[in-house]
Amino acid sequence: MADPIESTPHTNGPVVLQAAEAEVVNAIRRSGPLSRTDLARKLGYSRANITGTIAGLLARGILLEIGPGVSQGGRRPVLLALNGQVGYVAGVDLGATSVDLALADFNGQILERFSEPADVRDAPEVGLSRICEILLELAGRRGLTPAQVIGIGIGVPGPVEFQKGVLIAPPLMPKWEGFSIKDFVRQSFPLAQVVVDNDVNVMAIGEQHAGAGKDIENFIFIKIGTGIGSGIICKGQIYRGSDGCAGDVGHICVDYNGPLCHCGNPGCLEAMAAGPPIAARAREATLAGLSEFLAKRLAAKNHLTAEDVGQAAAAGDGVANEIIKDSGRMIGAMLAGLVNFFNPRLILIGGGVSKIGYKLLSAIRQAVLRRSTALSTRALRIEFSHLGDDAGVVGAIRLALDHVFVVQN
Amino acid sequence: MADPIESTPHTNGPVVLQAAEAEVVNAIRRSGPLSRTDLARKLGYSRANITGTIAGLLARGILLEIGPGVSQGGRRPVLLALNGQVGYVAGVDLGATSVDLALADFNGQILERFSEPADVRDAPEVGLSRICEILLELAGRRGLTPAQVIGIGIGVPGPVEFQKGVLIAPPLMPKWEGFSIKDFVRQSFPLAQVVVDNDVNVMAIGEQHAGAGKDIENFIFIKIGTGIGSGIICKGQIYRGSDGCAGDVGHICVDYNGPLCHCGNPGCLEAMAAGPPIAARAREATLAGLSEFLAKRLAAKNHLTAEDVGQAAAAGDGVANEIIKDSGRMIGAMLAGLVNFFNPRLILIGGGVSKIGYKLLSAIRQAVLRRSTALSTRALRIEFSHLGDDAGVVGAIRLALDHVFVVQN
Repeated sequence: MADPIESTPHTNGPVVLQAAEAEVVNAIRRSGPLSRTDLARKLGYSRANITGTIAGLLARGILLEIGPGVSQGGRRPVLLALNGQVGYVAGVDLGATSVDLALADFNGQILERFSEPADVRDAPEVGLSRICEILLELAGRRGLTPAQVIGIGIGVPGPVEFQKGVLIAPPLMPKWEGFSIKDFVRQSFPLAQVVVDNDVNVMAIGEQHAGAGKDIENFIFIKIGTGIGSGIICKGQIYRGSDGCAGDVGHICVDYNGPLCHCGNPGCLEAMAAGPPIAARAREATLAGLSEFLAKRLAAKNHLTAEDVGQAAAAGDGVANEIIKDSGRMIGAMLAGLVNFFNPRLILIGGGVSKIGYKLLSAIRQAVLRRSTALSTRALRIEFSHLGDDAGVVGAIRLALDHVFVVQN
Repeated sequence: MADPIESTPHTNGPVVLQAAEAEVVNAIRRSGPLSRTDLARKLGYSRANITGTIAGLLARGILLEIGPGVSQGGRRPVLLALNGQVGYVAGVDLGATSVDLALADFNGQILERFSEPADVRDAPEVGLSRICEILLELAGRRGLTPAQVIGIGIGVPGPVEFQKGVLIAPPLMPKWEGFSIKDFVRQSFPLAQVVVDNDVNVMAIGEQHAGAGKDIENFIFIKIGTGIGSGIICKGQIYRGSDGCAGDVGHICVDYNGPLCHCGNPGCLEAMAAGPPIAARAREATLAGLSEFLAKRLAAKNHLTAEDVGQAAAAGDGVANEIIKDSGRMIGAMLAGLVNFFNPRLILIGGGVSKIGYKLLSAIRQAVLRRSTALSTRALRIEFSHLGDDAGVVGAIRLALDHVFVVQN
C-alpha cells in the first residue's frame, strides 16, 4: 500500500482558466518549470503584465513555486511548476482481448497500474463496469475519492466520433455502437472529463509525449495487428480529420486485382498484409509441405499466428521470410504514398505484428525508399514504436490531461 | 490610369507587431471589422486590457475606425478595420507557359492585374527581371514607390524548399535549381518580404481565402495538368510537411504493373492519368482508326491535347469517353487512399486537364465513393476549383499578406 496523498486543493471537476491563465499553464505544461522572466518572454508580455495572473494561479494551488533555477547573472530565479496534486487522471487502453489501466497525477506521473484480460465482444456495460471498478480501486489505494479523478482518457479498438465519444460501426465490438461511454463512466466519476478516442490515435499521442515522437512535428504511428490503422500527429497535434476518422489506412488498396476484403473492395492492405493474412498464407504453405518449422508448430497447437511466422523466419525458414517480406513490401508501398502526400519526419510501427521483428521493418523501409520522392525521404526515419505495449496507456493519460483544463472566454 | 492613392503611413518594410497587437490584427484579418467589445470577447481579455493595444495600432495607422456597426441594445459601436493602405503587396503566379501578376492593398483588394506568356525553361534572371519590371509598372500606375510594396508572393511550378524559397530539382525549370528568387526580387523591391511556394500550395491558399475552401478546415486542392500535384489545407492552414514537399501525389502508384514513369517507378498516377498520357492514348486510338472526331483534329493540327479528348467526349465520342473515365478512375483511386488517411471535407480539382469537364469529375467521384470508408465520405464534397485560373494569383496575394506582419517576441 502506497502512502496516501495529502488533501488536494481541487475537487470539483475540470480546472477552469481564463485565457491568460491558460497561456501560462500551457507554457509550463509544454516546457516544464519556468521563471516569471522566462514566461513573460515566451508569451510576449511584460513581467508586470503576467504578475497578477501568476499570483491567481498560485493562490488557487494550480502552480507551485519550486527551488531556484539557473542564474542568468543575478539572483537565481524562483521557478513556477504545475502542482501535480491539483487533481488526478486515469488512462485506459482497451484492446480486443485485454485492458491496461493507470492512475496518474496532473504532471502525468503514473501512480498505479493494472492489466487484465478483457473481451470487447461483451456488452459495453460489462466491460465499462469492470473498468470503473478497477479505477475506483486504484484511486482508493492512493486515498483518493472519485471526485479527485477529474480526467479519464480511454482508447478503444474501433472508429470513434471524437466529439461525441461514441464508436461508429466498430467491427470488433458491434455492441458498443453509439453507446455513451462518457455517460456510463460519469456514473462512477461524476466530475471527470471523459475523453474517448481510437486506440491508434491514443498510441500516437503516447509516443508524442513520452516516446520517439517527442519534439517531432509531423509523424505517423501505424499499428499492424488483426487490422491496420494509423494515428497522425500533424504540426504537433493529433489530427483526427473532418469526421474523426483520419488515419484509417487499412482499406487503402495495394493491389487492384487482389482478394476481396470484408469491406467489399479488392486488395485492401488489411486483407493482404495484417496478422490474419500472414497466418493464413503460412498455414497454406505449411499444409503444402513447404515449411518444416511451421509444420511442427501447427502440429503442436493446431493453428499458426503471425508471431509463429516471425519465429520461423528468425530460425531461417525460407517460406516464412518470403511471407514477411511480402507483407512488409505491401505495407511499405502504401506508406510510400502517405510519405509523398504527408511528408512526415517519422513513421512508427506498432501493434502485435510488429513483434515479427526487423525483417518486416527492413522490407517496409525498402519499399518506402523505393517508391517515395527523394526530398520526402531525405530525413525520414521508420522505426518500431519505442513505448511498445505502453504507448496506449501513456497516451490515454496524456489525452485526459489535455482535457482537464477548460478555458473560459 | 487609375486614381493615385494618398500617401501611406508605412513605407519601411514588414509591419512589426507585439504579440498582443498581432492577436488584434489577426482577429480582424480573419473576421473583418470588429468592435472593441467583439475583439475583447474573441481574445478573452477585458476591454480595458486591449484599449492600449488598439490605441497604439490606430496611432500607427495600422487600424482605422470605421462607421458604426450593429447595435447590441445601446449606442452602435465603432468598428475597427485594417487600414488597406498601410502597405501594398503583389501576387505572382508563374506557370510553365504564362505568368499572372496582380497588385493589391493590405486588405487583399486587387488594384492592378497583368498576364503574358512566359517560358520557365529560360534562366531565372530572364523571367524574374521581366516579373519585376511588370510589378514596378503596376505600382507606378498607382503612384506607389517600390518601398511601398512590402510583400510579394510567388507561386512556381516545381518543388520548393519553403524556408529558403528555392526550387529543389524542378523538372520543368532545371535552370532555377537553388537560385535565390528572394535575393533577386529584393534588388527591385528592397523592403519586400518575398515568399516563394509551390504553385499548387498557392492555389489551395487562394481557394481557402476567396473560393470554395472558405471556412473549411481540411481540404485538398489537386491540380491535373502536365503533372499532378496537390496543396493541403489542414486545420485551416497550408500544410507543407517536414521538408516542404507534402502534397506530391503525382508519383503515388496506381498500378504496380503499370508503365514506367520518368521517376523510374512503374504505374505513377502522373504517368497514367495526367495530360500527356491522356493525349498519348488518344493519339494511339486515333491512329488505330477508332475515333472519327479525333482523326479530324489530328489531321488539322498534327497533335492532340487532353482538351481535344474532352471535346471529343462532349461530342459523344466513345473512345474519348473511355480514356477520360480511365483517367478519372485512376485519379479517384489515388484520392480514395488520401480520403481514408486525411478525411478532408472537400477536394477541389483544378489545372488544365480539369477543363475536360464533368465526365472526368464524375469518374473521380465514383472511384472515391467506391473505395473510401463510409464515414470519411459522409460529408465529403469533390468539386472543380471555383476560382479556376485565378486561384494562383489570388493565393499568391494572400501568401504575401500572411508574411507582411512580423511578430516581435
